Order: sequence, then C-alpha cells, then structure tokens
Amino acid sequence: MTYRENIEGLDASILMHPKVWEASGHVENFTDPMIDCRQCKARFRVDVLAESLNEKKKKKALDALKEKMTGNSPLYNKYQATVNNVKANHKEGDDETDELFNELLDIPELSGELLAEISCPQCGNKGTFTAARQFNLMFKTFIGSIEDSNAAVYLRPETAQGIFVNFLNVQGSSRQKLPFGIAQVGKAFRNEINTKNFLFRTREFEQMEMQFFVKPEEDSTWYNYWKQERMNWFFSLGMKQDKLRFHDHPKNKLAHYAKEATDIEYLFPFGWGEIEGIHNRTNFDLSRHEEFSGKSLKYFDEESKEKFIPYIIETSAGASRSFMAFLVDAYNEEEVNGETRTILKFHPKLAPVKAAIFPLVNKDGMPEISRNIEKDLRRYLKVFYDDKGAVGRRYRRQDEAGTPYCITVDTQTLDDQTITVRERDSMLQERISINNIKNYLLEKILGE
Amino acid sequence: MTYRENIEGLDASILMHPKVWEASGHVENFTDPMIDCRQCKARFRVDVLAESLNEKKKKKALDALKEKMTGNSPLYNKYQATVNNVKANHKEGDDETDELFNELLDIPELSGELLAEISCPQCGNKGTFTAARQFNLMFKTFIGSIEDSNAAVYLRPETAQGIFVNFLNVQGSSRQKLPFGIAQVGKAFRNEINTKNFLFRTREFEQMEMQFFVKPEEDSTWYNYWKQERMNWFFSLGMKQDKLRFHDHPKNKLAHYAKEATDIEYLFPFGWGEIEGIHNRTNFDLSRHEEFSGKSLKYFDEESKEKFIPYIIETSAGASRSFMAFLVDAYNEEEVNGETRTILKFHPKLAPVKAAIFPLVNKDGMPEISRNIEKDLRRYLKVFYDDKGAVGRRYRRQDEAGTPYCITVDTQTLDDQTITVRERDSMLQERISINNIKNYLLEKILGE
Repeated sequence: MTYRENIEGLDASILMHPKVWEASGHVENFTDPMIDCRQCKARFRVDVLAESLNEKKKKKALDALKEKMTGNSPLYNKYQATVNNVKANHKEGDDETDELFNELLDIPELSGELLAEISCPQCGNKGTFTAARQFNLMFKTFIGSIEDSNAAVYLRPETAQGIFVNFLNVQGSSRQKLPFGIAQVGKAFRNEINTKNFLFRTREFEQMEMQFFVKPEEDSTWYNYWKQERMNWFFSLGMKQDKLRFHDHPKNKLAHYAKEATDIEYLFPFGWGEIEGIHNRTNFDLSRHEEFSGKSLKYFDEESKEKFIPYIIETSAGASRSFMAFLVDAYNEEEVNGETRTILKFHPKLAPVKAAIFPLVNKDGMPEISRNIEKDLRRYLKVFYDDKGAVGRRYRRQDEAGTPYCITVDTQTLDDQTITVRERDSMLQERISINNIKNYLLEKILGE
Repeated sequence: MTYRENIEGLDASILMHPKVWEASGHVENFTDPMIDCRQCKARFRVDVLAESLNEKKKKKALDALKEKMTGNSPLYNKYQATVNNVKANHKEGDDETDELFNELLDIPELSGELLAEISCPQCGNKGTFTAARQFNLMFKTFIGSIEDSNAAVYLRPETAQGIFVNFLNVQGSSRQKLPFGIAQVGKAFRNEINTKNFLFRTREFEQMEMQFFVKPEEDSTWYNYWKQERMNWFFSLGMKQDKLRFHDHPKNKLAHYAKEATDIEYLFPFGWGEIEGIHNRTNFDLSRHEEFSGKSLKYFDEESKEKFIPYIIETSAGASRSFMAFLVDAYNEEEVNGETRTILKFHPKLAPVKAAIFPLVNKDGMPEISRNIEKDLRRYLKVFYDDKGAVGRRYRRQDEAGTPYCITVDTQTLDDQTITVRERDSMLQERISINNIKNYLLEKILGE
C-alpha cells in the first residue's frame, strides 16, 4: 500500500459548526432551483420538470411567453437578451426550442410566466406554478431540544471542509512542512431530489479525499502532478486504460473556488461518469475560514520566515462511485473448455477474499493440513475455507467472488509439504512449500 | 489481527427507512423527560434541573405539593403510593428528600405541580413550568424538499439496527451458518442535551459492534463466551487488569430487549465508565423487524430442517470511548536516570506510528541507508523518519507519541549491515540484520 511520508490521515466530524458552511459557500450556493405547485403543494426540480415536457409543450409555452413580452420593461429586456443570446450561440443540429426553454427557465422572474401554460404533473392544474426558488441540498437537523434556526446544523455535503478547518491542528501535531497533504475517508450527505444509477448518485455516500497544501507559486506543478498520480492510481489497481479519461473543465465553467479543474471519468454501462475531481482551489477555502472564524490559518515558513495562506490542490474521489467502477471493470465472462467462466478480475489489493484453501479430498489428513494453513493465513489476510464439492466447482465459486489465489492441499502435500497456488486470471498453478505460502501471498497482495 | 471465519463485515447506512426506528422501539422509547418554561420558552432536562436545586428548595417544593394533595383522587393515590414506596425502601444514610423529589418528578402529572414553587433558571419566574414531556434523542432530518412528517428520517442512534435489517442479506451472500456474527464500525448520533467528559459523551460518536446470531437454546453459552472474549480483547491490547470490571445488570433493571446484560467498565480519571455492553437480545429485534416490515427474517437450519428466528448476542463497544480508555491507560511518566520520561505505552497494534528510523549522524552514508529502510517499511507500516537533534531526544519524542520501535543506523551498520532496534517500554536494544527488519516488525506488530 505504501504510506506516504507527507500525507496525514484525519477523521473529522459529520456535524460541524454551521459557520463552516457559510464560510465554504454551501449555505448560499449549494442549491438547485425548485418550483412549487400552488394548488397541490408538490415541489419539483426545475430541470427535471423541463425534461418531462415534450417539444410541443415547450413551443406552446414559449409562444405564450413571447406574446406577453412587450414594451420596454427590464423583464422584457432580460427576455430579449436571452433570446438573442441563444440565437447567436445556437449550433447547427442542436435543438433551439430546448435551449431557449431551459435558459428562460433559469431566470427566476421569467420561470413562473414560462410555465403558465404547463399543467402540474401531480394535480393536473394549469397556471399554478410559483417562480423558481433556490433549494439548499444540505440535510438540516437541530442540536438540542428546540427546532429553531439557532439550533440548525447540517450534515456535511463533502468531507473537504473538515480538513480545511483542521489544517493547522494537523500540521502542528504532525510537524509537517509544505508541501504536505491531509487525507480522509468518510460519509457525506446530499439531499438529492433524484437519485440514480445504483451507487452513482445517492443521498448518503462515501468520499475519499486528499487536500494537498502547497506554496502559492507551486500550485500548477502540484496540480499536474496529482492529476497524473491519481489517474495512475486507478491504472495501478487494474482498471482498463480505455475506460478512463480526463475531462478538463474549460476556464469559463470553473467552480467559484477553482483555478484549474479536471474530472477523472469512467465509462460505465450508462455512459461516462465522474469518479474523481482534481482541483486547484487556490487559497480560497483557507481565506474564507480565516475570515469567518476570525482565527489565522496562515502557515509559517521556517526557511523564508514568511507567513502566508497555502494553496490547496484537492483530489476528491467518490469511494462509492469508484467501488462501482472497479466492480463493473472487473466483471468478465470467458470461454474455458467450452464453458462460460464468470470472473471478477479484482486487483489482489481490492479483492474481499485474498485466498481460498481447499483440501483436495475431505480425508487422509488433508483437512487438518488445510485448516492449519488457513489458521496461519487468517492472522494476516481474509481467507476462505471450502471443502464442499468438486475442486473445479470450488475454483469457479472463488472466480465469481474475485478471490485472486486458491491453495489446494493434495496427496503430494502429504509427502513433501508442498501445495499448489492457482492464480485466478491465468489459471496457472505453481507448486510451493507450505512454509513459504504466507510470505508469497503477503508479497503479492500487500507488497509492490 | 486474525480474521474470524464466522464473522462478516458490514457498512450499513446512517439514514435508514424511519420504520426501522419504529420497529426497534427508538421512536417510542429513546427519550429523556424534558420540561419547558411557559414564560421564556427555555427547555430543561428534568434530571438536570433537579440536580441544580439545593436541599432547601426541594423540601419547600415537597411541602407545597403535600398541602395540595388531599381527597381521594387518582392523582392523590399516585402521590401517596410514591411517598409510601420511598419510605419503605429508604436506606439508612441515603437522602430521603432527594429520593422522593426525583420519584415524584418522574410522574408527568405531578412534575408540573412539584415545580410550582421553583423559579426558572433562565428567566427567574416562578410557577411557569409545564408538566414533563418525553423528548426523543434521535436527530431528525428531512429527505426531499418539503419538511413534513412524511419526509422525516433519523440519523441512526446506534449501528446495531443496520445489522439486524441486513441479517438475511449477509447470511445468504456469505454462506454462513449459525452461529455466526456480523460486525460493523461506524458513526452514530444522539441529540444529548448535555455532553461531557471529552469523548465519553458526545452527540456524534463511533461505535464498533458485533451481533452474533445463535440457536435459541445456545444463547447463554454464547453470551458467557463473548462476555469473556471481549474482556480478554481489552487485556490482549495491553489494558491494565485492575482498571477494567464487569457491571452485570440486575434482572429488574434490564432493557426491554435484553434477557442478560453486562457492561465492561474502565476506571477513567473521572470514575468508572461503560466502554462496552454485552447483551443477550433474544429474538426481540428480528421479530420486531419481521413484524414491521412484513418480510420473514427466519433462518433455515439445514440439519434440523427447521425455520426459526435466531437469538442475538450483542457486543457493542464505543470506539470513541475505548480510544479514550486506551489513551488514558497508556499514559505513563517514569523516572529514567533522574529525568522524567513521558511515554504512551500503546500496544504495537494500536500505536499510530509503528517504527521510527534514525541515522545516528546525518552523514557518512547513514541517511541513505536509513531512507532505504524507511522506504521498504513504508510499504507495510506507518513509519517516521527523524534526523533532527541528539538521538536521546529523538527517542523521547517517539516515547511521547507511543512509537513501539526505534531503528538506529550507526557506524557499525556501514560495516556489517546491522541496525539496532530499541523497544519503547524496556528501552532494550537488539542488533539485527537490515534484511530481517521487515519480518521482525511485521511479526511483532501484525502477528500473534
């Protein structure tokens, strides 16, 4: 696995002081536009509502809005500017109605008017929609016994902020110097209106993040280093090269905290999806936390005797999404001797069971030797003992579970204390001494 | 570490369907009695309010209540029964006023009357308290965009229920047979009004639990097995024998789900405190989840061909509390050559850093050899490289951090490729070959 000298671990809390989320910008900006039906009180995400409408309905809504938009009011100007803008940027082949509809829907003052001709999907009434409003995606709960706004706290929507606010604590206690990182694996929560694609979008999910603190002038160097390093991490754990790609964010689409940003995307069966983001967050986060907390988050550089706020390069991976990508990537079906072999080609480090132990037959002392091997290996590795059915079937079961090594104790073992180790993917068998099996597996699985 | 053959791991979700908490009894019973001030709207936990009152105030309140309690009403009968009961069970030396006050305060219909003479600690008004009401300790939040009761979900107040509802999923996919266990480490949340003693009572905390499923007739055997096994676990990680004890719950104080129960308590600087509970939960939990979900949670026993609900033996440890106990237990100050040595005597398995590597002097090729050793060990263990200051001071730093092994590269290393390994507690040094250091440490730290 290799522990890096300059990365420390952290387990920050899920419920933090609400000021943290004001500083981070989540209270203000972590929102989706929503729209209510005044009649039946149902609430819809604006983009989901738009998706549910066909071309004809959208055209009708646009025509009705156009008729209402007259005179020289600020609203009319906004409308006209949007129309002109969409026309000017419209690309051959793209659906202009769709584009215009979505752009107008994004303008709160126009959204209600635009939907005047649309029926509510729940109660069926027309003209009942409010204007679009921003809805925060953080889960809110209350500390103490009274549910008022003073007691409101949020479930963290990302683990990153817990690292930022603990930056100086970790730096001081670990005696790290720039550049160094703080890594964390943990749960995060987003009140998504629509979950989808199994583990890809869920309300509760696992993140694995590392925030790397650097001198401001070294930001791009480290951004590029971590970009490559993180891609290589997926490769090093066996992910197929043609299933991974970078999606660099263009300058005009960057998040408010980012100077450079890229996604690592995996080609899922449902299409390309982000499994990790690498961002140059500059000094945005630490500056904001300094401002909102009133406490200095400056780093003192012993060499130059200067105090400054470090820049941060973030590598933020979805553990749940990555898990799904590894699972999908590992799944294989092969033809072996005219039969289909189903196999999970997990890298040994990721396989839930590292080795299985089979006595060839369940007698003649083979079970005893097998159990001893199992007992010894269990001190270091998760192993599985199986003495049921033909050996061929036992191999197949482990192939399906992704177990990389199967150890068989046979008649020769009784003579010379050797066993066979069969590697999952190649199905090649190697004969080694019982005394060597522990180191053999540890080297293959933990070492590198 | 040794992986047990009959224990599987699980990571259940923090936000589960609210029915889970109805089935478990938490919606109804996981409560503290609270009382409001009608004047200033402040809310107090009843027992905390009682603690804040002196003897004189309590006596005055009791006298006033006594005067009001006349006639032959059901309320009077309740009052008189409580008075008689406290008198009958009163032990020499205990404070009778206190006992009576607390018992009467626990009766909702009497609590308000009893407090009629007490001033609100916040606004100072008298006679403003409501009757006591039950307040649920689960954190509530809302899924989706509308905060109504249909969308309410709870942050889990314990990890156990996630195991119960997943019992058959795990059993089926892991091919386990009774007896077997499911273990989980994870966050739990309780909306405690009063947190205290550092990590001992916090609103967000880490649990490590194992639920062991057994045949009903084997419940007591396994209860006693796990009781001993769990105590031995703390001993095996070096905890001092005289700092640990069992606190068996008497039959009349058992929780509603328990047939037998014990706590493992550690003697903290602030007194004995529970760090783990072992419970025979019978078939209570699975029966309730079967009832509330309408889905069978019965286990099919292949040998007897019978279907039944297993009994559950629970070992529920607080990871945060245990961590604090290990930390307190490991702290030592010793006299060494007239100086005080501060040392954290962590068991090697618990030590955050497993080994430190020191070049004796920062030249003559010693740094290069040291860095190579460090690099090799980092593949398996968290290690720390230190070339700053006198070796004696470097040892002391690692003693304070609880690092069990310090490796020194000296002039002899250059001749014969040996190094010294110094053990933290005994301070004894052993000379071994560089080639053996990896296996030496792995055996000491991981093996057993």
